[in-house]
Amino acid sequence: MKVDLIIKNGKIVTSTGIYDDAGLAIDNGKIVLIAKTPHLPPSDEIIDAEGNFIMPGVIDAHVHFWDPGYTYREDWATGTMSAAAGGVTTVIEMPTTSPPTITPEAFKAKKEIAEKKAYVDFALHAGVTPATIQYIDDLSKEGAASFKMFMSEKVREMDRMDECSLYEALMKISAVNNVASIHAENELVAYLRRKLQEAGRFDPLAHLDSRPSIAEVDAIFSVILLAEELKARTHICHLSTARGVELIKEGKERGVKVSAETCPHYLLFNKQDYIRFGPYLKVNPPIRTSEDQIALWNALRHGIIEVIASDHCPFPRKEKEVGWQNIWEAGTGIPGTETLLPLMLNEGVNKGRIDMLTLCRLLCENPAKIFGLYPQKGQIAIGADADIVIVNLKQKRKISIEKMHTKGEFTPFEGWEVQGFPILVLVRGKVVAEEGEIVGKSGYGTFVPCHKTTQILSN
Amino acid sequence: MKVDLIIKNGKIVTSTGIYDDAGLAIDNGKIVLIAKTPHLPPSDEIIDAEGNFIMPGVIDAHVHFWDPGYTYREDWATGTMSAAAGGVTTVIEMPTTSPPTITPEAFKAKKEIAEKKAYVDFALHAGVTPATIQYIDDLSKEGAASFKMFMSEKVREMDRMDECSLYEALMKISAVNNVASIHAENELVAYLRRKLQEAGRFDPLAHLDSRPSIAEVDAIFSVILLAEELKARTHICHLSTARGVELIKEGKERGVKVSAETCPHYLLFNKQDYIRFGPYLKVNPPIRTSEDQIALWNALRHGIIEVIASDHCPFPRKEKEVGWQNIWEAGTGIPGTETLLPLMLNEGVNKGRIDMLTLCRLLCENPAKIFGLYPQKGQIAIGADADIVIVNLKQKRKISIEKMHTKGEFTPFEGWEVQGFPILVLVRGKVVAEEGEIVGKSGYGTFVPCHKTTQILSN
Amino acid sequence: MKVDLIIKNGKIVTSTGIYDDAGLAIDNGKIVLIAKTPHLPPSDEIIDAEGNFIMPGVIDAHVHFWDPGYTYREDWATGTMSAAAGGVTTVIEMPTTSPPTITPEAFKAKKEIAEKKAYVDFALHAGVTPATIQYIDDLSKEGAASFKMFMSEKVREMDRMDECSLYEALMKISAVNNVASIHAENELVAYLRRKLQEAGRFDPLAHLDSRPSIAEVDAIFSVILLAEELKARTHICHLSTARGVELIKEGKERGVKVSAETCPHYLLFNKQDYIRFGPYLKVNPPIRTSEDQIALWNALRHGIIEVIASDHCPFPRKEKEVGWQNIWEAGTGIPGTETLLPLMLNEGVNKGRIDMLTLCRLLCENPAKIFGLYPQKGQIAIGADADIVIVNLKQKRKISIEKMHTKGEFTPFEGWEVQGFPILVLVRGKVVAEEGEIVGKSGYGTFVPCHKTTQILSN
Amino acid sequence: MKVDLIIKNGKIVTSTGIYDDAGLAIDNGKIVLIAKTPHLPPSDEIIDAEGNFIMPGVIDAHVHFWDPGYTYREDWATGTMSAAAGGVTTVIEMPTTSPPTITPEAFKAKKEIAEKKAYVDFALHAGVTPATIQYIDDLSKEGAASFKMFMSEKVREMDRMDECSLYEALMKISAVNNVASIHAENELVAYLRRKLQEAGRFDPLAHLDSRPSIAEVDAIFSVILLAEELKARTHICHLSTARGVELIKEGKERGVKVSAETCPHYLLFNKQDYIRFGPYLKVNPPIRTSEDQIALWNALRHGIIEVIASDHCPFPRKEKEVGWQNIWEAGTGIPGTETLLPLMLNEGVNKGRIDMLTLCRLLCENPAKIFGLYPQKGQIAIGADADIVIVNLKQKRKISIEKMHTKGEFTPFEGWEVQGFPILVLVRGKVVAEEGEIVGKSGYGTFVPCHKTTQILSN
Repeated sequence: MKVDLIIKNGKIVTSTGIYDDAGLAIDNGKIVLIAKTPHLPPSDEIIDAEGNFIMPGVIDAHVHFWDPGYTYREDWATGTMSAAAGGVTTVIEMPTTSPPTITPEAFKAKKEIAEKKAYVDFALHAGVTPATIQYIDDLSKEGAASFKMFMSEKVREMDRMDECSLYEALMKISAVNNVASIHAENELVAYLRRKLQEAGRFDPLAHLDSRPSIAEVDAIFSVILLAEELKARTHICHLSTARGVELIKEGKERGVKVSAETCPHYLLFNKQDYIRFGPYLKVNPPIRTSEDQIALWNALRHGIIEVIASDHCPFPRKEKEVGWQNIWEAGTGIPGTETLLPLMLNEGVNKGRIDMLTLCRLLCENPAKIFGLYPQKGQIAIGADADIVIVNLKQKRKISIEKMHTKGEFTPFEGWEVQGFPILVLVRGKVVAEEGEIVGKSGYGTFVPCHKTTQILSN
Repeated sequence: MKVDLIIKNGKIVTSTGIYDDAGLAIDNGKIVLIAKTPHLPPSDEIIDAEGNFIMPGVIDAHVHFWDPGYTYREDWATGTMSAAAGGVTTVIEMPTTSPPTITPEAFKAKKEIAEKKAYVDFALHAGVTPATIQYIDDLSKEGAASFKMFMSEKVREMDRMDECSLYEALMKISAVNNVASIHAENELVAYLRRKLQEAGRFDPLAHLDSRPSIAEVDAIFSVILLAEELKARTHICHLSTARGVELIKEGKERGVKVSAETCPHYLLFNKQDYIRFGPYLKVNPPIRTSEDQIALWNALRHGIIEVIASDHCPFPRKEKEVGWQNIWEAGTGIPGTETLLPLMLNEGVNKGRIDMLTLCRLLCENPAKIFGLYPQKGQIAIGADADIVIVNLKQKRKISIEKMHTKGEFTPFEGWEVQGFPILVLVRGKVVAEEGEIVGKSGYGTFVPCHKTTQILSN
Repeated sequence: MKVDLIIKNGKIVTSTGIYDDAGLAIDNGKIVLIAKTPHLPPSDEIIDAEGNFIMPGVIDAHVHFWDPGYTYREDWATGTMSAAAGGVTTVIEMPTTSPPTITPEAFKAKKEIAEKKAYVDFALHAGVTPATIQYIDDLSKEGAASFKMFMSEKVREMDRMDECSLYEALMKISAVNNVASIHAENELVAYLRRKLQEAGRFDPLAHLDSRPSIAEVDAIFSVILLAEELKARTHICHLSTARGVELIKEGKERGVKVSAETCPHYLLFNKQDYIRFGPYLKVNPPIRTSEDQIALWNALRHGIIEVIASDHCPFPRKEKEVGWQNIWEAGTGIPGTETLLPLMLNEGVNKGRIDMLTLCRLLCENPAKIFGLYPQKGQIAIGADADIVIVNLKQKRKISIEKMHTKGEFTPFEGWEVQGFPILVLVRGKVVAEEGEIVGKSGYGTFVPCHKTTQILSN
Repeated sequence: MKVDLIIKNGKIVTSTGIYDDAGLAIDNGKIVLIAKTPHLPPSDEIIDAEGNFIMPGVIDAHVHFWDPGYTYREDWATGTMSAAAGGVTTVIEMPTTSPPTITPEAFKAKKEIAEKKAYVDFALHAGVTPATIQYIDDLSKEGAASFKMFMSEKVREMDRMDECSLYEALMKISAVNNVASIHAENELVAYLRRKLQEAGRFDPLAHLDSRPSIAEVDAIFSVILLAEELKARTHICHLSTARGVELIKEGKERGVKVSAETCPHYLLFNKQDYIRFGPYLKVNPPIRTSEDQIALWNALRHGIIEVIASDHCPFPRKEKEVGWQNIWEAGTGIPGTETLLPLMLNEGVNKGRIDMLTLCRLLCENPAKIFGLYPQKGQIAIGADADIVIVNLKQKRKISIEKMHTKGEFTPFEGWEVQGFPILVLVRGKVVAEEGEIVGKSGYGTFVPCHKTTQILSN
């Protein structure tokens, strides 16, 4: 039976093994067949992978696209172009826009905006604030990927969740079998910032001093305790500390439903780098120590951290530069979705820290399972969406903000030579990017509602 | 392109997911294609799975076929018929025959015997004794799956490995990147048996008293310590105690290369059952407590135990019955390869203790990876051997030694009604059993040499 | 050289051993000599211990005497009479009076009140609220035993300490080398009470439901984390949960300066008792499970909990009885200082759970060391205050509120027959109670300022 | 009442505190009174401590005096002179003499020899070999302090205890409530030595290579497991590894009756020192790493190791010097009883690693309690033997084998300047050494039978 498209002559990567000299057939945007190359069916359209890796499209589970509200920083078109160019075929976007995605109306409105502009598929995290806990049920029905909450302080228009609000929200999220995505730092960060400001501290290092590791550790402990008590599913965003890793490990061993994400900047930078970059590397939680870096890499290998995401959050240069004078006024975040896969191929696979199979789990399979996109997304499998990335693990590129598609005007990875690049990116069987250039169309990306059934990840 | 055989219309089980309404194509004994049913290629031979599960053939990594030497108990024909009927497509046989498989000559001789009789594929564990450590290199070149050693006492013709011999053997096994398979009980078991005999104890419970948990725990600790010191790969056979689980968990967390196996009888029986069955349930290590059972099931779920195998070791009735008078004279072991998969489908999957994906890892993927049969065996994947089992998860059967193919004359599972049965079993694309009846041929099974590269299991 | 008083013919208990047939000499209120009875010096006044135990006077480190402010519940005269009758020679009183002891003025005022009424010596805990952190330095100079803080909610006139206030207070307490005494339950207790009230719950069990173990566990984790970060000395009051014990143990092992106290009611009652007594056993934290009881006794034996105190907090009957209708309106607390030693002699020593030496550490030596009364108080030693209790370990008594000296009108221990009683009680060489009757004088008790030097407890 | 002797004007050290300006009275060799100096009774004999520390005499629980059998190396006269000069008032001697102290006859014979020569009091460890387990009962009645056993290999005339003999011996030792003292290294040490010899290794470092940490760790694990199973009291001699500390800590937490000893050379030397001293620092177990040193000091502080002893084992110079050519032929051991207290005062107390109270527990109270000498020995307490050391914590001395009283001809501590010295040493009220010179008499020392009641140490 003839199909729309075949990709032949590659190394197909699944999370348990690699099929040499293999290919796959795509029909109606789905993978319908996987075979040794000679056994592929006829097709008018054929892509030759030329011996490269054929892996599932990356799901970047943590991006801020600033749209609606701050489209001078990023919008759904530029954000998803940046994603596509980097091998990301699905993004899950965060609710800290204006208005924030904390009501069904805001959720639907953002979905409409995105559908008009997106180059790749997308899902949406909803947000919860103490005043909007009542919307959890409706937002979940709309297909919210998870419910993002801040334990530290008000972030833009989203109020801080105190311990009691968190308790109440987790009960409701658990009732609809959805997931709580937690920004796990506690209220000390606001207090310490105020104290430092009073003490006349405006230098970049003051940012680190205002957000000590204990702020993260204390918040994670509380989350795990509540998750255990309420049998709720929780996901720790952008984990940055060794002690946080330890608490999550212990929680998993007790059977608590807790998963975790980290980001390339926590894996690849430490305090020395922050000193160099100052406001340009200002992120929350802040950059930590080399001991924390080692613990995070180990946690990836041992399945304690399940997801690597970018926490893509771009700013124009001037909103960063101001931080040299007053670090508190600098924008917090860096662009990252376009460099996520290349960095992990180079620093993870090519440097031997993790293998291709593990990388597929961390970037594709696990986020799909945790947020309810699986089995439609996240794997190369019969019946799944044909979201596919062909990776040339030998190709070398220099990272340059000039060539990237985000509106962000700076990356701390500028000039890094990375080996390993997504040379062809398909979303539902259509090529959206080739050799880092966009060939897809604005508005092609569609919304993917997240459906939670039972927890699929084994631990 | 036409193929030899297609299997259509099933639920294909891989260790990460299940493909509905799917099938696969087999050519030259290999899986060449996996597809949604409508996309399967033409073939003269078609098997309709009728919506049932299509899973990889089971690898029973621990069987005793008594051949050569004690063929009145079992031989390679009856043993592999029993395997085939139960969905086992590859067995890995133990060296405690006569002569024992501890020299290259004995290894080759056994291989020749087996090639003439076997209904399914097979690999061979070699054995090591203090006097035969020098053969490790040659035996590894012959394709030995691992090196079995006894820490407790002389077992038939294989002498006990003391701490120093074990040290030396592990060094050599590590040098050829092979695996040490350990019977982990220490020398207390022989001492306590002698003491109990002197005290006039011949009753069945004396067997339990002679092999306390500490005998296993002490041996496991020593193995892990040596594995860590010598960077050797070790595999604990038939793990039976909660404290053993704990030690293995701690070892894995420190990065020690240690894996573990348990057996259905440790999962499904405890001391109360032993009291009832007496000599008919005499096994080594002995049946333990219900607390140990719980710990073993949890260890399966959490990846601390990687393998379930049968420790198939049949005896004629009279060699068991004698134990009511004198437990020390009863044969030690029970048949099990034919009931391995049905029991695990019923007690594991259908009772909700583990899911199909985990079961596939425990019975197929993990033993293949640990012993070096992967990726040829152990998975449904493009390029792998077409060792396939079609499982009807709803079919109910009553276990009966009458209908089993082993020469063994008793099973403690007699009369258990189990739901879930391998209705069709293929080895390299040929049907060898159907609905529990043998349709294959003696001598079809071939030897599979085991090749160890690097450790594939992630932890 | 002649002395004021000798006590002869007893078994002197020190925390490392017992001296048989021994006695001691007292001069000017101090112990000046310990000797075998025949070697005691001449004296006009001689007490014959008649073979009974001579132990240090008990330091009850946690009492509420309601004076000033609620003297209809208790006052410094009745409170210290109750203490004296029970073998308590020093009390350390809590700041939750009206006005609360949170300013130097209130501290001095309470000291004056107490000096006029007290029958035994006393020290005072100060309190800290977010608005009174600035007084820590002055209160410490006044001799405050520690700084009590509530993490749960406002308690009478003392506001809750949020995470940030706690951080700031611990910094200041650490700077003056004093101790933070923490009521460790978090803010969930107020939230859950409100939710239960909204749900129409007014029955006694609602109190337990409103204060789950996690409220204590979360608070203890935060305290230990801050203690570690700020190198501050912290003391967990009335520890009630097994998981709290575990966290404190881990903290001590990391070198964190954290000590802990539990109370007889957590050791001797569980949920079943609470069901029976209802409001009469309403305490905070609430009565827990039998598993928690076991963990607390073990923690006493292993030095994880260093102190047993009474948390004496009496109410008139009518303020308790009202709780059968509406548990939220019942007074929270029970009298306890008079039964502290007899209960521990009976339930601890005579029932074999702890020995006399350990009891001396828990009731005398450790509180003296933690709060800065050592070496003046807390031991039988040359140079120490002659605060002494003669204990008849065989005497049996029935506990009865009728015979007790508190204004409290109910004890849940009513009718318990206990063996082991303080038959003679001396403060600074003067007898203050004999056979449970008061023979001392109001106003004899003096204030003992607490001086913190370095941490004396070894772990 | 007049007494034989008073010591006045010192700082009396007990394990819980220090009494300033105090003294004690001695009558008939016992301490009968402790008092502030002005309250001391009249006496014809008065010692003025001049403000120095008055501490209990040291119990060196691990010495080899080579008598009978090898008196050219040491004998009971020179050994106990060395002890007395160093502040040791009781020694407990090991059974590895010729004949070994493994029968009641040998035990009594050694006792007689010692009674004629000893300058200080003494107790005797018995030994157990597989062939002499039957003497445990009689030896215990003779007052054996404990039963020493070797798990590694035959040591002089004492055969190695295999796992089964150890099991049997522990049962018998447990039945008489005595203690097993274990040399915890396993049989690998003999195997590895042979292998190294075969490989031509005779250099000093070969000794370290032949006794890796795992040999100790494996043995300790087995001992603790058996102690737990058989509820036997076990004591690990000369603990040297960090992992051994960890196992003992875990055992104690599970309630296993296991205590431990370490020696000054493990605390103060590491591999770098061994390289320098070669055969002169050859001891068993061997000198370890600096990480192990840190773990041992921490274990002393936290009560995981209860005893510091010298493992005094002197050799003439020529029996050491030979080891430069062939390390296997060098004598194993160093003299140490005379430097034990001075080293610990300097390196422990004066360098702030442990305080005087902790040192008293480690050198006096704990060995007395563990081996059954308490309360007669091990403390300054009413009724105890007047075994007393006056310590000048400021006096500086240079360690020199010239000035020491042992027959040993080398100490690795040669030339160390230590601060803190026992200026006066009394055994049962008689001065036996003054300023490092012997003033006592040969034959004054008496045998102290050890009586085990219940375990006194709390953990």
